[in-house]
Amino acid sequence: MVNEKFKKLGTNRSAIRELFEYGKKLKEQIGEENVFDFSIGNPNVPAPTSVRESIYKNLNDNTVHAYTSAQGDVKVREKIASYDSAKFNLNLSADDIYLTSGAASALTIVFNAIYTKNAEYIVIRPYFPEYKLFIEASGGKCVEVDSDENFSLDVDKISAAITEKTRAIIINSPNNPTGTVYSKEQIFALCKMLSDKEKEFGGKIYLVSDEPYREITYGKEVVNPMCFYNDVITCYSFSKSLSLPGERIGYIAVSPKAEEKNDLYAAICGAGRALGYVCAPSLFQRVVADNYGKTSDISVYEKNRDLLYDSLTSYGYECVYPDGAFYLFVKSPGSGNSFFEECKKRAVLVAPSDDFGVKGYVRISYCVRTETIINALPIFEQIIKLFK
Amino acid sequence: MVNEKFKKLGTNRSAIRELFEYGKKLKEQIGEENVFDFSIGNPNVPAPTSVRESIYKNLNDNTVHAYTSAQGDVKVREKIASYDSAKFNLNLSADDIYLTSGAASALTIVFNAIYTKNAEYIVIRPYFPEYKLFIEASGGKCVEVDSDENFSLDVDKISAAITEKTRAIIINSPNNPTGTVYSKEQIFALCKMLSDKEKEFGGKIYLVSDEPYREITYGKEVVNPMCFYNDVITCYSFSKSLSLPGERIGYIAVSPKAEEKNDLYAAICGAGRALGYVCAPSLFQRVVADNYGKTSDISVYEKNRDLLYDSLTSYGYECVYPDGAFYLFVKSPGSGNSFFEECKKRAVLVAPSDDFGVKGYVRISYCVRTETIINALPIFEQIIKLFK
Repeated sequence: MVNEKFKKLGTNRSAIRELFEYGKKLKEQIGEENVFDFSIGNPNVPAPTSVRESIYKNLNDNTVHAYTSAQGDVKVREKIASYDSAKFNLNLSADDIYLTSGAASALTIVFNAIYTKNAEYIVIRPYFPEYKLFIEASGGKCVEVDSDENFSLDVDKISAAITEKTRAIIINSPNNPTGTVYSKEQIFALCKMLSDKEKEFGGKIYLVSDEPYREITYGKEVVNPMCFYNDVITCYSFSKSLSLPGERIGYIAVSPKAEEKNDLYAAICGAGRALGYVCAPSLFQRVVADNYGKTSDISVYEKNRDLLYDSLTSYGYECVYPDGAFYLFVKSPGSGNSFFEECKKRAVLVAPSDDFGVKGYVRISYCVRTETIINALPIFEQIIKLFK
Repeated sequence: MVNEKFKKLGTNRSAIRELFEYGKKLKEQIGEENVFDFSIGNPNVPAPTSVRESIYKNLNDNTVHAYTSAQGDVKVREKIASYDSAKFNLNLSADDIYLTSGAASALTIVFNAIYTKNAEYIVIRPYFPEYKLFIEASGGKCVEVDSDENFSLDVDKISAAITEKTRAIIINSPNNPTGTVYSKEQIFALCKMLSDKEKEFGGKIYLVSDEPYREITYGKEVVNPMCFYNDVITCYSFSKSLSLPGERIGYIAVSPKAEEKNDLYAAICGAGRALGYVCAPSLFQRVVADNYGKTSDISVYEKNRDLLYDSLTSYGYECVYPDGAFYLFVKSPGSGNSFFEECKKRAVLVAPSDDFGVKGYVRISYCVRTETIINALPIFEQIIKLFK
């Protein structure tokens, strides 16, 4: 007499989380140095030292652990609004920002806030598996659209999938799992098409831009779609930029140009409340404000990317060059799950692509110690030979 | 084109939160010392110094901000399970504990996890207003049952409200808003009745025990219903015991004797995942483990209670003596909201009882500086004269 849907979700954990738990146990059994865990996006680069300094400073204020306003401390929201406004040439105010317990809670809150009867939400394959889960938990239908051959946006395909039921498109650039960064031209084309579709259907189609990897790029510009389209909702997390994934801190930004801005923000507050989010963790609200615009040392990821990409492609692996995030999305040699299994046998843990909505790939998270990559390379070299 | 239900929830914030925001603005306008804010349960007593020491210690470990398992770090869960087992003579293991972002998230997760079609959840009037909201957000129906004249359990009335649709009873002892602590006899009688009802209907009726004030008592024993009934789910928060309300840290404990224990725990994991709770905040998971069993200096609350209770009753106010929590539930002199308004006019902020499901009372949160109470007493004395 429990909820069957949730029981199933709890029993069949995501393949990635399952692998993460398997890796933890394996490390206990055979030693951490013998497990090559590329399963999860748990940043290995520590948070900047300024994070610790900010924690020390804020602990001197006895009110630091108190409830904040439900939408987050106003000073923190002001800091984010003014910084993002300057960076992206926007006109955000504190009242456009809602602090969340990371990007996952930002997404669940947004999907609930914009849910209307029979709502459809378009995701771009391959996609972060929890999108589908969060969309369905809010009552919506997840509509999957393929990306192009380089894992970039195929605006025509997205356009073809839009109906009067479409309530939102979810994009994620830099992308998990592919590392693709959408170009300015692509974002512009998407926004133009969405504007036309809004006129055609006379309703609102929100562009939900999930941006936890915004700062994790190696030179390529990440475009803010709020510059080209009014109905944009940004979901952001400090998990990756400041290496704070366990602390659950992020935010939602509502475009100040969204026509329904006030209703939308109210619905976000209401959804957050109904889902049990009283406020984002208070100490880390202040910490991210103090550290806004800073990042962990992402040069480590760039070094890892170059090493892994160059080596794997030299062994014969096929992979689109990733401009951002810290994932390599590699075509599996052989058929079915055989490549994944051969890796797992040798304690090399990579995430199979099935959960991301496509078959025949694995995701390799390279937010690990460079040494782990160096030690795993001969194994990767050996495995591909099995399939030749 | 946003969700109307959530828009409404976001626009009409809870009266208590509204008052909290009003108080914040008023303090800016007329000075903090001139506002007597008894609106919200934001503990004024700082967290124990051992909390800060634990933060310092844990920051030396670079993995402290990493993702933990979704149900919480196993060492933290082991600590809670072994401590609670010893304290309440139970047999809890780490796999019965699920760490949450405070009690609000514990409740939303539980209500979702046990939701089956047409499920009814019984709450005892007066009750924490968000219960109804969380129940309805999960799809359930909130059934309100009156407490007895001393705000204790009326087991006959609860029994009469149980139907085959009843999926859970929510109790909260020490109680918000009344401060009542249910006696061992009452809990036992409730549990006995529930056992009989389970047999009568052949289904599961969960006793959801919401215990954020478990440690905030002034001598009276708080009974753990797991000792008397199998189908118990405890929702706990460290917000009050360790004065960490903004940090959002708590847990769910599933009775090891619950017949459906494994399914129930899986459904809790699934509901947490679907609601966007990736893991409870990682640093504070470790902090609460280090400080488990400790509390802030609750003697301050006892002093406040005695001062406020003795003074108000001496002025002629009517109030049931509170054995725990940090609230006084005072009968409003006069009719309607006139007492509340007279208080508000004088910058004395108390929560009207309507949101708690009963009319004619106000809740006075006395987790404030004793000086605030001392300075407000003459105002309370003056106001009651208006109604004589």
